[in-house]
Amino acid sequence: MRSAKDDRLVGRAVARREDPRLLTGHGRFVDDVELPGMLHAQFVRSTVAHAALAEVDLTQVRQVPGVVAAFTAMDLDLGDITAQLGRPLTEFVPTAMPVLARDRVRYVGEPIAIVVAIDAYAAEDGLEAAKVTYETLAPVTCEDQALAPGAPLVHEEATHNTLVDVSLFATEGIDEIFDNAPCVVRVEARTGRQNALPLETRGAVAHWDGREEQLVLHTCTQVPHQVRTVASRCLRLDERAVRVIVPDMGGGFGLKCVVGREEIATAAAALRLRRPVKWIEDRKDALSASFLAREQHYTARAAFDVDGRILGLDADVVCDMGAYSCYPFTAGIEPLMASAEMSGVYKVPAYRVRGRAITTNKAPTAPYRGVSRPQYVMVVERLMERAARALGLDPVEIRRRNIITEFPYTGVNNITYDPGSYLESLNLCEQALKEAGWYGRQAAARAEGRHIGIGYSCFSERTGYGSTAFAARKMEVVPGFDLAEARMDTSGAVTVTSGTISHGQSHETTMAQIVADALHVDIAKVKLHQGDTDRITYGWGTFASRSITVGGSAVRLAAAKLGDKLRAIAAAEWGIPPEETELDRGRVRRRDDPDAVLTHEHLAETAYLKSHLLPKDIDPGLTATAAFDVFNDGTFSNATHGVVVELHEGTGQVEILAYVCVEDCGVAINPQVVEGQCRGGIAQGIAGALFEQVTYDGQGEPSATSFMDYKVPTAHEIPEVTIHHLETPCAFTETGAKGAGEGGTIGAPAAVLNAVNDALRATRVELDNTPITPETVHRALTSPALEQTP
Amino acid sequence: MRSAKDDRLVGRAVARREDPRLLTGHGRFVDDVELPGMLHAQFVRSTVAHAALAEVDLTQVRQVPGVVAAFTAMDLDLGDITAQLGRPLTEFVPTAMPVLARDRVRYVGEPIAIVVAIDAYAAEDGLEAAKVTYETLAPVTCEDQALAPGAPLVHEEATHNTLVDVSLFATEGIDEIFDNAPCVVRVEARTGRQNALPLETRGAVAHWDGREEQLVLHTCTQVPHQVRTVASRCLRLDERAVRVIVPDMGGGFGLKCVVGREEIATAAAALRLRRPVKWIEDRKDALSASFLAREQHYTARAAFDVDGRILGLDADVVCDMGAYSCYPFTAGIEPLMASAEMSGVYKVPAYRVRGRAITTNKAPTAPYRGVSRPQYVMVVERLMERAARALGLDPVEIRRRNIITEFPYTGVNNITYDPGSYLESLNLCEQALKEAGWYGRQAAARAEGRHIGIGYSCFSERTGYGSTAFAARKMEVVPGFDLAEARMDTSGAVTVTSGTISHGQSHETTMAQIVADALHVDIAKVKLHQGDTDRITYGWGTFASRSITVGGSAVRLAAAKLGDKLRAIAAAEWGIPPEETELDRGRVRRRDDPDAVLTHEHLAETAYLKSHLLPKDIDPGLTATAAFDVFNDGTFSNATHGVVVELHEGTGQVEILAYVCVEDCGVAINPQVVEGQCRGGIAQGIAGALFEQVTYDGQGEPSATSFMDYKVPTAHEIPEVTIHHLETPCAFTETGAKGAGEGGTIGAPAAVLNAVNDALRATRVELDNTPITPETVHRALTSPALEQTP
Repeated sequence: MRSAKDDRLVGRAVARREDPRLLTGHGRFVDDVELPGMLHAQFVRSTVAHAALAEVDLTQVRQVPGVVAAFTAMDLDLGDITAQLGRPLTEFVPTAMPVLARDRVRYVGEPIAIVVAIDAYAAEDGLEAAKVTYETLAPVTCEDQALAPGAPLVHEEATHNTLVDVSLFATEGIDEIFDNAPCVVRVEARTGRQNALPLETRGAVAHWDGREEQLVLHTCTQVPHQVRTVASRCLRLDERAVRVIVPDMGGGFGLKCVVGREEIATAAAALRLRRPVKWIEDRKDALSASFLAREQHYTARAAFDVDGRILGLDADVVCDMGAYSCYPFTAGIEPLMASAEMSGVYKVPAYRVRGRAITTNKAPTAPYRGVSRPQYVMVVERLMERAARALGLDPVEIRRRNIITEFPYTGVNNITYDPGSYLESLNLCEQALKEAGWYGRQAAARAEGRHIGIGYSCFSERTGYGSTAFAARKMEVVPGFDLAEARMDTSGAVTVTSGTISHGQSHETTMAQIVADALHVDIAKVKLHQGDTDRITYGWGTFASRSITVGGSAVRLAAAKLGDKLRAIAAAEWGIPPEETELDRGRVRRRDDPDAVLTHEHLAETAYLKSHLLPKDIDPGLTATAAFDVFNDGTFSNATHGVVVELHEGTGQVEILAYVCVEDCGVAINPQVVEGQCRGGIAQGIAGALFEQVTYDGQGEPSATSFMDYKVPTAHEIPEVTIHHLETPCAFTETGAKGAGEGGTIGAPAAVLNAVNDALRATRVELDNTPITPETVHRALTSPALEQTP
Repeated sequence: MRSAKDDRLVGRAVARREDPRLLTGHGRFVDDVELPGMLHAQFVRSTVAHAALAEVDLTQVRQVPGVVAAFTAMDLDLGDITAQLGRPLTEFVPTAMPVLARDRVRYVGEPIAIVVAIDAYAAEDGLEAAKVTYETLAPVTCEDQALAPGAPLVHEEATHNTLVDVSLFATEGIDEIFDNAPCVVRVEARTGRQNALPLETRGAVAHWDGREEQLVLHTCTQVPHQVRTVASRCLRLDERAVRVIVPDMGGGFGLKCVVGREEIATAAAALRLRRPVKWIEDRKDALSASFLAREQHYTARAAFDVDGRILGLDADVVCDMGAYSCYPFTAGIEPLMASAEMSGVYKVPAYRVRGRAITTNKAPTAPYRGVSRPQYVMVVERLMERAARALGLDPVEIRRRNIITEFPYTGVNNITYDPGSYLESLNLCEQALKEAGWYGRQAAARAEGRHIGIGYSCFSERTGYGSTAFAARKMEVVPGFDLAEARMDTSGAVTVTSGTISHGQSHETTMAQIVADALHVDIAKVKLHQGDTDRITYGWGTFASRSITVGGSAVRLAAAKLGDKLRAIAAAEWGIPPEETELDRGRVRRRDDPDAVLTHEHLAETAYLKSHLLPKDIDPGLTATAAFDVFNDGTFSNATHGVVVELHEGTGQVEILAYVCVEDCGVAINPQVVEGQCRGGIAQGIAGALFEQVTYDGQGEPSATSFMDYKVPTAHEIPEVTIHHLETPCAFTETGAKGAGEGGTIGAPAAVLNAVNDALRATRVELDNTPITPETVHRALTSPALEQTP
């Protein structure tokens, strides 16, 4: 029982309810799903980046001991995974992604055939017996090749390799503004291709349930209902004939918010064989053949007046989306995001951002935590620092002069920003580094010839994407709403079902906090159910930091409706209006008589077991459902990151000495969870800034297919992060929360890059590309300019 | 797609959709559930009928190879299964049924300990190693012993062995009416103890789901939510922490509409061991240690005027309920039913029926198809025939003079009967036998010395029990309402979830017919989901012929609401009021323009994937839920059964030569399914009339523990049944249907018994007890009276 009425759980660092299970090894992940008679699948994958498939001969595969079946695209005859944007063909060229390659392969690792065997070893043996005859084509492995006139076409049905080309907002006369501006700075930046790298690779277990006439697909996805929609269409089943179940997940980060080909192929094999089939992606495939992210190329300029006030922002971003558009987000997700929102936290009077997506013979990309924002924030923040240097301004001060301070603020990009603490977070972050003495230490270190730099980044992040905001992107499918159902049973226990799905976000804790407050019950009485498409009509899933803003609002509404029903039943028993009652610690209380209470158990007994006592306008049972959507431009979390780095001469190593994050995600349902999100995001941001990169050779062969080559930072490389919370509640989410999932990743690369550049100040070398490798730093530190510094 | 708007499926013999699965061996029954690491349970059972348990020593059991664990009541510390009636203690004495016997055993077969082993064989071996020390007590094995002054007490906490003693309606001055009546006839009848005998014995598979924090219990029950309620209470878990899943079932007939001890004990073992545990009842236990039924003793009299019109009915019924009250129906179910409703289809001006339940040291009883009605109808119909003989009236004619013909009819028992075809069914049944020439053949046969008899029974059966009707019984839990949810997905497929559960009733077919009509969609697009307590908030389950009347009404309402939502979305797209649209073969059509249609798929795409296009007062997604309850005395199906039998002198065999059933269950959703119910019920009624009986010796030892001793009729003994349908639609169920599940069983014993007595007319022997054994018939046929017949 809760001890007092005002004892709210929202806002408290309630211990994660997932942890006892996960920390004692009792989590159930896809690979833990074992079904009687289960077979194991592996995929024959393309060994070349671009080729026509002359022949796929699986005859020998089927002879391998232990192999039960092997199927090509032809054998399975599945529908394609096709992501559509409702834009004119000049703006968007759709690409159909077949579940298994049919007549052409477009990247190394592309699945060509599925081999099903009694165990994974036999399946692997089967792969080696496959005979694939390629008629190789010239691969397109980079932007220059893709955009060159007469370039080979990745998709032969298109006339060029540009899938998306949009300029969402272009201020008239912007070129003149630049021509006449007293200060114009430029940045050209390339960001490395990354792997979102969830600890748990992708995987699926599929089986046919003959009684329910359903293909049951256990898979680790952030979007169970969307996987259901696509799987049913590919398999040519009614949607209800596919049930997607998501068990515990070891991360997703966007890589799992798109529909994978292998999970559909696994389902198809199970459907065909009427036996359970498991596929677990190995790390090599995860690094090279799953969805990648982040590779963008910015050519940007910003115009300033003499006081450092922005006059205009003009950028061109080319996003290398790899071989296919992913479902549902399409190749448009990155260029559209950059084109629409690049101005960020700043007042930008003139704006033009052209966003392009190109297709290349590399593994396709998916949204990855932050989606374009880590990159464009980095570019904008580089522009700010460069302008500060050009104008002789303090880099914090120039931001102060441009940052949005009055809300709601409608930008030149036609987006309205709800209230945030943009300036406050910047000031607080600077103050924190100052009070910790970093400015003094930097000066002292410099005097000793050490290279210490301080860098900042400011950003806001749209998190409450509703259908209005998605519809503005002209997507064929428009995420937005979410649903929740709250039930109370006769023991007074509450089960709340959400269409969102936690893959590390602690929903079992945070959603329960919301429900416990809404119903004023002990949190021990609340259980979240998620990840079963049969259990809730629809849910858009977990991405875009939407779970708490949208899903949590639906959960809050459903719980509140359930509370209203409890009060109505109690009021009927007392013969008073419901308004004269209130929820109080697992009971309903009369407002006019604090001693008159009816317990939830008592009311539930009436609702279920003695329904004849209910007023006729109250349905029996205790269930409430609610939908929530956002019908404006959404809500914006904001943060400032401040970083202190030291560059080591001999090794070129970038050591992060201090990291301060001042974040404002509105009401933090659980500050500890928010901090966990921040720290994890920052680690991934630092990884992108300094370490990780998926590279390809000139033939499109991936060169980092193991952790020997793909450098992932460990706890050693990731610093302590000091987190300060500000709280500007969102006015229209049900809890006042804004999203908190992606911010860390967005702020880190820019702040790190700025700090590195600050440390390199003496060298006059400026670095704008990520990852910043030790080699680059070493080269900069040994550059001739350094010798000339006083 | 449906071919035309008026092409309704309700009323048509749509082929059973369950059959392809079941007939090809793809059904999934509890015993088909296989889980990794699953253990197998068996029960140490009492070998004596009545004893104090001095010691239960499982030490040796735990040493048996393969045995993993063994638990007594003490080890598991479970709550009891307690069925409560809200009646004064003089009227109802509750009995707590422990999951495992604690300090006392009260019947042979009572579970004392659960043994869990790696397979069922090892578990059986374990049973033999159990050392149970009994301090035997005098057993109470029959009514005479139970009611004798100073009888041993089955429940030591009570003061007598009578659990229930009620006279619900007693006409004042009824004794004077009998004293003054020109004709009084009497019947004393005993009906044999029976086993409902589903082909599939009871069973359960339980496991702990650590992720959902749920004990998942696969069990074959007619009342999944009630099993959940009881299991959670016994296991001391929140109700939501138990999930009951019911797979395919091979019959239930009431035996499975109460909560079994073994399923709870199996769950407790799984909970304790955190491993899956399976228990499958063997036939011996099913025959002797599960729930039994039917043993009643009537002492009845009826008063008539000289024209054969009933003046009064006065009866005393003693129901031998065995050792415990079952949950939820209590030991009151049979005496209350008899006491309330014995007057049946007849106008009875004076009425008094005392109903008693007694407890004995025999396996406890559960409701069994018909619940008291097969017995009291038999007694009433014997009274009618006896009066006909006494007054020299034709047995059909005397019924005609008494049968209710004007509706609604409120009886002396305060029950209001909705319209039925009581007289029409009687006339049609007689006419059918006449037209088939049976009266002529009877006369001819008699002339040859053969013993052919014709017998009838008329009855009505309350089937639409709502909460009002159950509440009138003062039960602590009041069944009544049911819930349904209808969902449509983006492929236009509909899933409807019901709180009822088919265990042979063809719900997958009949509920789908209702939905297909309500939504005007192809039935191939409709799928029923049932049998998962997590999928629907509550359902009272399937018993009392309530599934179609109550559950089917909820399903119809939910589907209709879903249709309304489809129309509203279409209307919004067209900008017209919803009233100007209609559902039409998978589409919504404008009434004013037959060519303007929007497909369900299109509307679903809007509802789910383009929700920004929905009007703001329409929630996204396509779901509708509905509740249905009956707030009056319910609806009454009715029927007349007519039987022709021949008695064979040498063997005493009763051969059924013809069987006609004229039934009226209102709108028959699927006449073929109704006929299947009739035929199956009649077979069970004949079984009770002529074959089956569970007997005990004086020590309470069951003497029929295999099919060698418990005589079950086969297809050979069950005749062809000619069925005629009448249709008096129910005014307040959503489809006009009345229940059809139990009627066959109710009518058969009375008709068979009357026919046998008609065949015995020459012997002047009258038989009133069931089963009528060949020995009894043989004795009657060789009685001295026969010699004296002209």
